[in-house]
Amino acid sequence: MNSYNSVYTSRMAHAKSPANTAASQDIRSYMHGLGRAARAASRVLARTDTATKNAALRAMANAIRATKAALLSANAIDIARAQQANQDAAFIDRLTLDEARIEQMAAGLEQVAALPDPIGVVSELQRQPTGIEVGRMRVPLGVIGIIYESRPNVTADAAGLCLKSGNACILRGGSEALASNQAIAQAIVSGLQQAGLPANAVQVVATADRAAVGALITMHEYVDIIVPRGGKALIARLMQESRIPMLKHLDGICHVYVDDAADLDMALKITDNAKTHRYGTCNTMETLLVAQSVAAQFLPRIAEIYRAKGVQMRGDVAVQRLLPDAVAATEEDWRTEYLAPVIAIRIVAGLDAAIEHIETYGSRHTDAIVTNNAAHAQRFLREVDSASVMVNASTRFADGFEFGLGAEIGISNDKLHARGPVGLEGLTSQKYVVLGHGEVRG
Amino acid sequence: MNSYNSVYTSRMAHAKSPANTAASQDIRSYMHGLGRAARAASRVLARTDTATKNAALRAMANAIRATKAALLSANAIDIARAQQANQDAAFIDRLTLDEARIEQMAAGLEQVAALPDPIGVVSELQRQPTGIEVGRMRVPLGVIGIIYESRPNVTADAAGLCLKSGNACILRGGSEALASNQAIAQAIVSGLQQAGLPANAVQVVATADRAAVGALITMHEYVDIIVPRGGKALIARLMQESRIPMLKHLDGICHVYVDDAADLDMALKITDNAKTHRYGTCNTMETLLVAQSVAAQFLPRIAEIYRAKGVQMRGDVAVQRLLPDAVAATEEDWRTEYLAPVIAIRIVAGLDAAIEHIETYGSRHTDAIVTNNAAHAQRFLREVDSASVMVNASTRFADGFEFGLGAEIGISNDKLHARGPVGLEGLTSQKYVVLGHGEVRG
Repeated sequence: MNSYNSVYTSRMAHAKSPANTAASQDIRSYMHGLGRAARAASRVLARTDTATKNAALRAMANAIRATKAALLSANAIDIARAQQANQDAAFIDRLTLDEARIEQMAAGLEQVAALPDPIGVVSELQRQPTGIEVGRMRVPLGVIGIIYESRPNVTADAAGLCLKSGNACILRGGSEALASNQAIAQAIVSGLQQAGLPANAVQVVATADRAAVGALITMHEYVDIIVPRGGKALIARLMQESRIPMLKHLDGICHVYVDDAADLDMALKITDNAKTHRYGTCNTMETLLVAQSVAAQFLPRIAEIYRAKGVQMRGDVAVQRLLPDAVAATEEDWRTEYLAPVIAIRIVAGLDAAIEHIETYGSRHTDAIVTNNAAHAQRFLREVDSASVMVNASTRFADGFEFGLGAEIGISNDKLHARGPVGLEGLTSQKYVVLGHGEVRG
Repeated sequence: MNSYNSVYTSRMAHAKSPANTAASQDIRSYMHGLGRAARAASRVLARTDTATKNAALRAMANAIRATKAALLSANAIDIARAQQANQDAAFIDRLTLDEARIEQMAAGLEQVAALPDPIGVVSELQRQPTGIEVGRMRVPLGVIGIIYESRPNVTADAAGLCLKSGNACILRGGSEALASNQAIAQAIVSGLQQAGLPANAVQVVATADRAAVGALITMHEYVDIIVPRGGKALIARLMQESRIPMLKHLDGICHVYVDDAADLDMALKITDNAKTHRYGTCNTMETLLVAQSVAAQFLPRIAEIYRAKGVQMRGDVAVQRLLPDAVAATEEDWRTEYLAPVIAIRIVAGLDAAIEHIETYGSRHTDAIVTNNAAHAQRFLREVDSASVMVNASTRFADGFEFGLGAEIGISNDKLHARGPVGLEGLTSQKYVVLGHGEVRG
């Protein structure tokens, strides 16, 4: 029996009456207990060498493979409960573990083990006129709180990234996946212990009570950053309530602007892919902007593709003139992340109007221009204030793996700390290190 | 008459009755007006080239020199008011402008003009397996709010750093320096306009009403980051109320640990300098930790220096045994930033106990070890979780200029975004840029 289960047993006796104030107090004190334990574990992790962290990651992967049967039966409990609650098929699919998904979790941990360790790297070490050498050392943030929904695989993915970046973590998955997440947690803790690391380096919240989330996002003495992974409703709620900085984005209202100097064949390929490759992802194009001078040539061609794929087109009056089947777009359409086979289309005068539209309606996530005009490309790159700005490429590339980060914990469209797809580096900080030889300030 | 004064005249008519709710509403709407104007100006600044920004900085410097007489007479108003209010000599000294300080402001702006422009620099551009090239471009944060106290020179210094880093700024100086800050603002705006930049790129709040601060630190739609520059009371209050991220530190409880493997002559030089070079700065050592094995040799020597300089020593029982004139230190002493000729001294068993003490009582600002043992140095650098960690150098070096940043807007001991002394780079962000050739995601 690991420490995690004993905490569960001793502290959670009353957790089944969530509306009860005494129970809420218990949850709060339970969460603070996790926080204190995470803080203590984070100190050990910060000084743990790469080999030990990698050994733990590989042991975690093996433990997940070895406990496949237990994972599947825990998952069956969650699925049965979800079916009783009349959850829809998409929900149950996200919740479901099968042999392939279990193997993916294990392989994912091994991939993280193979990534370079960011921690302890000293960069930019330079001798100053006084003789001191000043550089920056990459260090963990400390304790990371991760809040997610029904996919149990996030438990293993997030644990792996936090561990590799030297951070302790507190994981709070969807209440519907509680049994699955507990089972995965056991495998993770067993991997940590095999490598001689503290079991509390990864803690999975052992209650379905929502008060646990409220405690997690306000206990700033124990948690350095919150990473929410889930739908817009979850993130909007956390943004209201969190007292801890978050790595997040709310909307992905991504644009492709087809410039007057675009290669239209290329534009066709990119605007097809950016919209139709996957409809439900945050880096999918939601609004297509087309320069007036090429609209008559370009729009009928892309419309043919969208029609064939069942994408509903919504456009301004000028668009409707070229595409009679386009629905009239309202102001609201320019602000909407459809996550569906729907696209808003607008004809703009040129580059300035495109940038202005993106500035007004965009969500600072990912925006692209298709152009062969180098000056236009440069202006778009400089002036569009989004986390990822692209020239002649599909917005679908905005992704940690595609960007070469080797992993992704999430995507941020904030400007402070990490921005864009966030890999291991976004879970770290840099401190100044000074190597002296007895220098004093004169 | 510049736009700034007309805003003052039209919006601030009621600002003299601060307790009045209608006036507070006016202040809020006045501040939101500044916010909107700053946001608009920030878009222009973000795409302004280096030469134009440098021309504005030099024109600002010249305007400050050219309006020296006006600055001095505005400052005389503030000084007279401070004297009437019975402010102490130190306060009035901070408030005072003279010819030398005016020239320092101007020269400071020219120095910022001479620094490399961080904006637009693309780093780490790498081709990915798909063919896209992915890099990061440095961009401004947007709008920076700076809140400071009585020193009017901060107005020019902060304006210069924000402009060079492509950010618009809203500056809120101490109410006691209102006339001086207004006069400096006029020179700044004249410089901006000479270079063809928007006057609203730098706005100085034109009211002494404290409600202006409350508005500034909560209007997150217009302000991206707050930089407080001032004493602990100011920062503590802002930390409670700000809804916008801050670049700040609260305490500077800095330690020097004299290791058992220290060169004691070097330790003497460093612990003398770290304590006595200046008493009132945040990077001054407040607590001296000495390894037990060298305490009997080392402490009497450093005590002789401190005695000669009038530094009061407070120590634990072991210290008092070696230094009979040391006052008994209480638990509170380990947590105190004296900013005065007082030092807390503790004898510790060795490196582990020193790290533990710093972890428990420190403020994560700047800590140093004196040692010739490379393994101890390495462990101290890795394990001490402070913004600046030093080996064999005085904590007094924790400073943007000493670290080679060329400038300093403040020091942060937070872990997210900038950490340690913050120069131009800390006022910027990096976005991802993707250069494609028609690539789509498969």
